[in-house]
Amino acid sequence: MNDIELVSANKSFGGWMKRYRHRSQVLHCDMVFGIYLPPQADQGKPLPVLYWLSGLTCTDENFMQKAGAQRLAAELGMVIVAPDTSPRGEGVPDDAEGAYDFGLGAGFYVNATEQPWAQHYRMYDYVVQELPGLIEEHFPVSDQRSISGHSMGGHGALICALKNPGRYRSVSAFAPITNPSDCPWGHKALGQYLGNDRAAWKAWDTCELLAGATERLPLLVDQGESDNFLAEQLKPEALEAAAAAAGHPLTLRRQPGYDHSYYFIASFIDDHLRHHAAALGL
Amino acid sequence: MNDIELVSANKSFGGWMKRYRHRSQVLHCDMVFGIYLPPQADQGKPLPVLYWLSGLTCTDENFMQKAGAQRLAAELGMVIVAPDTSPRGEGVPDDAEGAYDFGLGAGFYVNATEQPWAQHYRMYDYVVQELPGLIEEHFPVSDQRSISGHSMGGHGALICALKNPGRYRSVSAFAPITNPSDCPWGHKALGQYLGNDRAAWKAWDTCELLAGATERLPLLVDQGESDNFLAEQLKPEALEAAAAAAGHPLTLRRQPGYDHSYYFIASFIDDHLRHHAAALGL
Repeated sequence: MNDIELVSANKSFGGWMKRYRHRSQVLHCDMVFGIYLPPQADQGKPLPVLYWLSGLTCTDENFMQKAGAQRLAAELGMVIVAPDTSPRGEGVPDDAEGAYDFGLGAGFYVNATEQPWAQHYRMYDYVVQELPGLIEEHFPVSDQRSISGHSMGGHGALICALKNPGRYRSVSAFAPITNPSDCPWGHKALGQYLGNDRAAWKAWDTCELLAGATERLPLLVDQGESDNFLAEQLKPEALEAAAAAAGHPLTLRRQPGYDHSYYFIASFIDDHLRHHAAALGL
Repeated sequence: MNDIELVSANKSFGGWMKRYRHRSQVLHCDMVFGIYLPPQADQGKPLPVLYWLSGLTCTDENFMQKAGAQRLAAELGMVIVAPDTSPRGEGVPDDAEGAYDFGLGAGFYVNATEQPWAQHYRMYDYVVQELPGLIEEHFPVSDQRSISGHSMGGHGALICALKNPGRYRSVSAFAPITNPSDCPWGHKALGQYLGNDRAAWKAWDTCELLAGATERLPLLVDQGESDNFLAEQLKPEALEAAAAAAGHPLTLRRQPGYDHSYYFIASFIDDHLRHHAAALGL
């Protein structure tokens, strides 16, 4: 059994908000994740799990503290798991200038192939394989999984679902980076994690993956129209075009006046939880 | 007109979460407050206001980011205003050792009489008079007010209501410091802000004020039973005894397993909003 160590526990909406530290074999460092266990977790029946992937600069805590998801998760009987956004700790390399958009807090949910990143920066394997394995070993959960995220984490949720047919029952995203091969954040991250051969980037780009998807899991995407990153980084029109070309079901909701913040996420998180709950049979 | 300067604006549940900076004439420094304006604020009818007073170390942001209050406030048509917890900025004195429980972030909602605190530390006048004046001048709100808060801010909410009959329609608190004359946080703060004559402390102590209250506004109080500060600092049993002795209506809910965190507040904030909404005619 892989050990996990309790970091904190707070009762929340009749359930428990907990944080755990563990040694990641994939990332070669200690990692902390947050888990919300609704009251139904005490009743013996294994519960489905929503994985939430956060955006640039976040840790496991931002979503759990700011999205207000526990209220409805407690009602639905849904477990929520939020990992950190990159490997951390001694020996884990960071952006040379400590930039917010690469390195620590910015793992982009890929498996890096380039040095010095390849040893630690394997967030894709971590969130798709290692972390669910740990969750399903230690908590009263089923193997029914859904995935969602914000910005860099929206990109992460979409690629994890598209690359793993059958592994998730549903997927959604808030303001995702839809086409990292064609935006500044993506260029910087994919160029360093994966190298300059752009062919290698395609396996980590939602717009590229849609064409070949073998499972047509409907995508629910919310995008604020007053998001500062809309035009340059997020490109919902590219997602729309790629989904249309592939015949992939997409519900893209453009939300007037909303920005990139957790105030936006909190405003629509209930819709996403209900979307996942329906797919998870809750 | 007293100027206010917009610091930030985020759309939230169809309304707006905004922060403003202004010069406080009472505190002799610049102050920032947060205000949630529900969608109904655009419809012309003046809305009632809930004032939220935060606890030690907080700013105007903690409650707005973590309590999840906007969802129901948007539904009810309730404005929420959250001030900072002390004066701030150049020239404002702080605890000599920078302790978290006195000075900056720890104004205790009193009017200090002792030096060097008396010039700036007048949070009572600020939250009872100056801030509502500013809010009622600049926003589409009525003069119907309610007040709530957490810990030091729960103490603040209770004393503001008890000292100002007729000014608030309702009051509630989460884990309030009920008897600051008789706990370490209170001793330290009242001793320095008000001096060592304990007779002067009574005017700022909920348990002392209850006996002479001329308005019997029902108190709604939630207290987590796993709160680390319960026995030494918060003393709900003192509140219970004082309310019983005075014949003051008190609903004290002891919540098993809950701690002092915002996860506790978020779990019960809807009950408090509905308590205030009923009193405010919403």
